[in-house]
Amino acid sequence: MTFGGCGSAVLAAAFPQVGIGLLGVSLAFGLTVLTGAYAFGPVSGGHFNPAVSVGLTVAGRFKASELPGYIIAQVLGAIAAAAVLYLIASGKAGATVTDLATNGFGEHSPGKFSMVAALVTEVVLTAVFLLVILGSTAKKAAAGFAGMSIGLCLTLIHLISIPVTNTSVNPARSTGPALFGPSIALEQLWLFWLAPIVGAVIGALIHKALLAGQDD
Amino acid sequence: MTFGGCGSAVLAAAFPQVGIGLLGVSLAFGLTVLTGAYAFGPVSGGHFNPAVSVGLTVAGRFKASELPGYIIAQVLGAIAAAAVLYLIASGKAGATVTDLATNGFGEHSPGKFSMVAALVTEVVLTAVFLLVILGSTAKKAAAGFAGMSIGLCLTLIHLISIPVTNTSVNPARSTGPALFGPSIALEQLWLFWLAPIVGAVIGALIHKALLAGQDD
Amino acid sequence: MTFGGCGSAVLAAAFPQVGIGLLGVSLAFGLTVLTGAYAFGPVSGGHFNPAVSVGLTVAGRFKASELPGYIIAQVLGAIAAAAVLYLIASGKAGATVTDLATNGFGEHSPGKFSMVAALVTEVVLTAVFLLVILGSTAKKAAAGFAGMSIGLCLTLIHLISIPVTNTSVNPARSTGPALFGPSIALEQLWLFWLAPIVGAVIGALIHKALLAGQDD
Amino acid sequence: MTFGGCGSAVLAAAFPQVGIGLLGVSLAFGLTVLTGAYAFGPVSGGHFNPAVSVGLTVAGRFKASELPGYIIAQVLGAIAAAAVLYLIASGKAGATVTDLATNGFGEHSPGKFSMVAALVTEVVLTAVFLLVILGSTAKKAAAGFAGMSIGLCLTLIHLISIPVTNTSVNPARSTGPALFGPSIALEQLWLFWLAPIVGAVIGALIHKALLAGQDD
Repeated sequence: MTFGGCGSAVLAAAFPQVGIGLLGVSLAFGLTVLTGAYAFGPVSGGHFNPAVSVGLTVAGRFKASELPGYIIAQVLGAIAAAAVLYLIASGKAGATVTDLATNGFGEHSPGKFSMVAALVTEVVLTAVFLLVILGSTAKKAAAGFAGMSIGLCLTLIHLISIPVTNTSVNPARSTGPALFGPSIALEQLWLFWLAPIVGAVIGALIHKALLAGQDD
Repeated sequence: MTFGGCGSAVLAAAFPQVGIGLLGVSLAFGLTVLTGAYAFGPVSGGHFNPAVSVGLTVAGRFKASELPGYIIAQVLGAIAAAAVLYLIASGKAGATVTDLATNGFGEHSPGKFSMVAALVTEVVLTAVFLLVILGSTAKKAAAGFAGMSIGLCLTLIHLISIPVTNTSVNPARSTGPALFGPSIALEQLWLFWLAPIVGAVIGALIHKALLAGQDD
Repeated sequence: MTFGGCGSAVLAAAFPQVGIGLLGVSLAFGLTVLTGAYAFGPVSGGHFNPAVSVGLTVAGRFKASELPGYIIAQVLGAIAAAAVLYLIASGKAGATVTDLATNGFGEHSPGKFSMVAALVTEVVLTAVFLLVILGSTAKKAAAGFAGMSIGLCLTLIHLISIPVTNTSVNPARSTGPALFGPSIALEQLWLFWLAPIVGAVIGALIHKALLAGQDD
Repeated sequence: MTFGGCGSAVLAAAFPQVGIGLLGVSLAFGLTVLTGAYAFGPVSGGHFNPAVSVGLTVAGRFKASELPGYIIAQVLGAIAAAAVLYLIASGKAGATVTDLATNGFGEHSPGKFSMVAALVTEVVLTAVFLLVILGSTAKKAAAGFAGMSIGLCLTLIHLISIPVTNTSVNPARSTGPALFGPSIALEQLWLFWLAPIVGAVIGALIHKALLAGQDD
């Protein structure tokens, strides 16, 4: 399941060159998670993403003992998907594939945003993402809507942050294309593991604090 | 909760420069409320907005005594969010941030629409917004759809009115960016408190009249 | 209720000049009906449209005796809404409002499509629209989704037919702007009453035939 | 029912010239299936497509004996719809209709992608499509959401693959326009029967393997 999900996520991720623009790319990422959630169940839908898995563990929704295995599978799935994508993109007449939509900051940021701006953006947006995931999969939430709100939240995140970092909020999504991309993508990869995981932990802690507040 | 919601709302609000166009900005605003509604509950979803809180009070859905505290929190949240946004936007190489998507009319209207056009537009659209919020959170409404209809209604409102006023229908959303924007945004801020609140009251009264008509 | 619905529908309709493009206009029309449906109930959502009311009557979902009153209210609502819109649009500095998104064919078609193409398009698409409305508001359908499928169907109809006729499928929507538009819009108005109503009757008859087939 | 569905699908398919861009075309295809699903029921919604019917048969959700009749009806419906479309498109002043959005690879690919890239893309995306269809129409899935996830999945598929093959994943959709298009579309038609059907079978087998894994 992780394989299939990551595969389609990165497939969609690596087609910025199709002429659908930022809005289209944002929609594509969101729809990948939305449709994945309805195909495999809402929690699995978020489970193509190591940061989300860490956040779910902090929130007590996932076993810490299963975390390493899941993260390894997520990264392997993302690499396999990036390889398929590389194959397809290389089939374009006259094309030399140099960048499968890698993430970056500074000179590698689409809009030349600084490292601090990239860090703040990825932390804040991953925290928001976790709040939406945890809130809309809570027991009290109306059944069936979680896939939609999670998928559309990811669309929103892309609408906001593609110019800043090309949007990660997902370390696996950053890792796959980086292996096939320019060397700067690998050098900057640490930020796209650090910031989403920090953001996910913050989001999970805020969610727990809100729940505790409601119980009083 | 108000903080988180306002934060992401204004974050999305202040990125007109990202190249996603009017359609993308409209979607971003709507998705912010849509996903916020599924994260925090449908009523909270509309509660990032002082005009909505006033309308809910007029419709008997919210306690008047809690209104001042909520409005202060909404405005503080919007200011804090605008500050985060200012930080990120300032991280763009060579950028001088002069306008975080402030609202305006006359010479400060994106399409140079007059004060009367701005006033009519904000009153009518906030009234429509309240009708949709009150109708889709009514007890008889199908559970779970309120977040979607409210969020997409806000998208619709932006599609219509960005050229007129850059779209407010939310005094807090207008106030945060105005503090970091050009002085004309602060001078015109009165209209974006007056018109949305008047519209919200009108929408709430029409909703009550429709309900009374159904009871006969 | 008809007033509010028609008002926002025509408001959205008459902003082709906002730079949101065909896709934005298509979304705006669809979201108007979608949000209207959640505000007022799914059947009312379609009831901003005389052709839909005729189709619902043919399908046995609406009383023929109430039809004339509804259609008069729908047309008056559309005219009032076009007037509000005219007021707002006239508030743009230096603007002379000459066309509030009227429908047309031949030389008045956005893509210069012939009368026959316009007639076929409006008949076929209104028939499809009625099939979606009647199918998704049937008793067996999952509750709550009708507003979404009807609204998104109208978006689809606009995506297909704006270049052909500027998209009517709604005689009231054609009538309001025509009164404020160029004389050719009034001269061609007959087609935008005839074709949608013929299409709606065909759609209702196909729906009844499908239902009869299922009963065997 | 198949006739109506295929009709509107190909109608939407053959309007790339309307200026709504790749994003608009992607939305139009998805919305066609989404609204068709709510009009006729979720399974029928996918049933405008011979590859989907084959996949459903492999997954044990459809009788093999009914397959030939359905596929013939689907192809005839697509041809009839392409004919209506040809009629409308020919009504444009000065227009000579030479290509109703046919599918292709190599020199007939919109982005000049090779035959191998086209084959891999159509197989992978049809497999994903079947996983979403089978997952979201399973008994355990929340009722009512299947139409939305299936329709939006088709939008996603178009966002990814229009540049590669102009997007088929549906042999009937490829066949109708090919009969009215350039001869190269007919010569390449074999790939748009082979790849979607192979992909659908793979998707159905993965779905069965996942189900078997859950039962253990």
